[in-house]
Amino acid sequence: MTKLADYQPEHFLLTMKGDIAIVQLNRPDRKNPLTFESYAELRDFFRALHYADDINAVIFASNGGNFCSGGDVHDIIGPLVGMDMKELLAFTRMTGDLVKAMLNCSTPIISAVDGVAVGAGAIIAMASDMRLATPEAKTAFLFTRVGLAGCDMGACAMLPRLIGQGRAAELLYTGRSMSAEEGLNWGFFNALHSADELDEAAMKLAERVVAGPTFAHGITKTQLNQEWNMSLEQAIESEAQAQALCMQTKDFERAYHAFVAKEKPKFEGN
Amino acid sequence: MTKLADYQPEHFLLTMKGDIAIVQLNRPDRKNPLTFESYAELRDFFRALHYADDINAVIFASNGGNFCSGGDVHDIIGPLVGMDMKELLAFTRMTGDLVKAMLNCSTPIISAVDGVAVGAGAIIAMASDMRLATPEAKTAFLFTRVGLAGCDMGACAMLPRLIGQGRAAELLYTGRSMSAEEGLNWGFFNALHSADELDEAAMKLAERVVAGPTFAHGITKTQLNQEWNMSLEQAIESEAQAQALCMQTKDFERAYHAFVAKEKPKFEGN
Amino acid sequence: MTKLADYQPEHFLLTMKGDIAIVQLNRPDRKNPLTFESYAELRDFFRALHYADDINAVIFASNGGNFCSGGDVHDIIGPLVGMDMKELLAFTRMTGDLVKAMLNCSTPIISAVDGVAVGAGAIIAMASDMRLATPEAKTAFLFTRVGLAGCDMGACAMLPRLIGQGRAAELLYTGRSMSAEEGLNWGFFNALHSADELDEAAMKLAERVVAGPTFAHGITKTQLNQEWNMSLEQAIESEAQAQALCMQTKDFERAYHAFVAKEKPKFEGN
Repeated sequence: MTKLADYQPEHFLLTMKGDIAIVQLNRPDRKNPLTFESYAELRDFFRALHYADDINAVIFASNGGNFCSGGDVHDIIGPLVGMDMKELLAFTRMTGDLVKAMLNCSTPIISAVDGVAVGAGAIIAMASDMRLATPEAKTAFLFTRVGLAGCDMGACAMLPRLIGQGRAAELLYTGRSMSAEEGLNWGFFNALHSADELDEAAMKLAERVVAGPTFAHGITKTQLNQEWNMSLEQAIESEAQAQALCMQTKDFERAYHAFVAKEKPKFEGN
Repeated sequence: MTKLADYQPEHFLLTMKGDIAIVQLNRPDRKNPLTFESYAELRDFFRALHYADDINAVIFASNGGNFCSGGDVHDIIGPLVGMDMKELLAFTRMTGDLVKAMLNCSTPIISAVDGVAVGAGAIIAMASDMRLATPEAKTAFLFTRVGLAGCDMGACAMLPRLIGQGRAAELLYTGRSMSAEEGLNWGFFNALHSADELDEAAMKLAERVVAGPTFAHGITKTQLNQEWNMSLEQAIESEAQAQALCMQTKDFERAYHAFVAKEKPKFEGN
Repeated sequence: MTKLADYQPEHFLLTMKGDIAIVQLNRPDRKNPLTFESYAELRDFFRALHYADDINAVIFASNGGNFCSGGDVHDIIGPLVGMDMKELLAFTRMTGDLVKAMLNCSTPIISAVDGVAVGAGAIIAMASDMRLATPEAKTAFLFTRVGLAGCDMGACAMLPRLIGQGRAAELLYTGRSMSAEEGLNWGFFNALHSADELDEAAMKLAERVVAGPTFAHGITKTQLNQEWNMSLEQAIESEAQAQALCMQTKDFERAYHAFVAKEKPKFEGN
């Protein structure tokens, strides 16, 4: 295992609180757009996270009242218009690779959405494991507004599983904003908090996560994504194997002994 | 590409408003049941729609206060009772082919449900991309009431993805009506409108759809259906290809230039 | 077909009301934990149910104000801590086999949840076809609390399809209780009833189910589970075959003749 907590990113902010990493985009004056560089560095960060053992949860936080305004029109969409197919596919695969890296990093990710989460910003929120938001959060899958399809970075696969096929279709065809309240009622957001309490609420949830059995959490994340298109029979067998594996961790033993001693278990992630 | 807007159906109504097609069943005195003939003609219409370039959205509207009462008891269920297995399978495959044709037509379909949408009528609503309804809409998967299983025309696959597995099971086992309010809260309907505003609301939504990039919409529809049983990794790669393809349309370029010029883009569907 | 209504279980309670079986765990003083023995006997019961024709619905009821407190810490978790991998996998496969047996028994199962439904108890509720609860019901996927992953007995496959991927993730990572009201709003529960009306409500729902075409219900259950990871095209063809098969039952004929005679059909399950 490697260490990642000391990593100093060039194109986003990384702040550590114990074993919780806080990731933020850092162009708040422009509502935090993505650039070719930040896409690539985020992808590399989440890929490295899979092998790191000093980060047990990630908060993808807002910055300056906004989460992320998606791919920058001047920095990204302009150049794309002039590219040939080979270059275009290299780009769409890179953005998809960011989602794959988030899904495969074995570490729970909590998005804390204030203000704008649109385009690729909405996808980053969606590719997280849990999502908190403020009542002011505006989530929109804007691709249709720039002449593109709603199928971007896995949206047509992930959004229906979060909010249902019918609501997903409307958001993807129209590009309209989903309000925070809709997001809560539809299961996109896990909870809403006022803007001045959002970061604390995300930290509290992250602390609860890292206080748990972090190795087992990584297995939970793997299974939640892997079982997506298994048959029920396959999923049940796959879980029998995965859980038997977790039953040989020391954390399982620790929990049992704590229970017998009427104490709270202290998990160590192994 | 072919033209379909001038098509004059025998067994349903077709009205054109620009590039928006309004489809209606036409036996309002009997709440618009389906017959062997209307099943077949609808299937052929949606199959042809895949190749047509003069229709960019379809509204499946109600008629005389009802959407569709499903397969007619006298015209359909009576004859079915006397059929052998070969004939029965030919029938169930034809009804399934209507759903397949709706799913594969590359054109967003909006159902506007007033009154009764039951049996195959509920399936037609479900096989649409978006659904509006009046507070009086009654949606029921009646198959169990006529001695059949809930698995009709894809219901056991589609309904759980719209409203969740538990609610779907109850509707399919009991055949009970889902109220319009339940349908809204559960994600079956996208919005409710009073009976005198339903058609206008559906038209407004359709106009919003056809004002967008219609070629890209067709890709969105394909992906929403194709990714259903892909793994997440496969879905993300599939979207990388599909979106790269959309990035070579003129509509994408039009959107970019309009943005730079601070104008609203005018999409042309290519 | 065999008979099962006279079966006298050792490790749970079985009460028959006509062709409706009421299953209850029977250690109410300890909130009805599961043991190795009750796991195994329940698995065998639901396996036998697949071949029985004298039980047409199952109510999995609460007992003494609680549904099920999951695997007993002393009877199950203690021994697991000392097991080797071969023994652990034998255990996790046995618990998974209970879920498989519930899914494959061709008989609708209604859970009636009062009080605690946690750990494997939450899974049993989840593996049922429909779920009723009291306002006091507390459902929790506690695995994380004992150092394990959320992937137990199919949870990572089933829970997202009931309540959506985002809500499922939160419950599985944190192990927190889902309130009855959340369960209702999210589609986990089909309805809530006060504690003194729960059993009657479950019986009423079961009576409605067994008054329907029970052979066709078995097909509905098969399809709801089988189509899980089919493509839409495959699901539609699979339903065309399954429904054609149901159209050759006498129950279908009975329904038609009853309709023509303006009577209520009497189904006989063949």
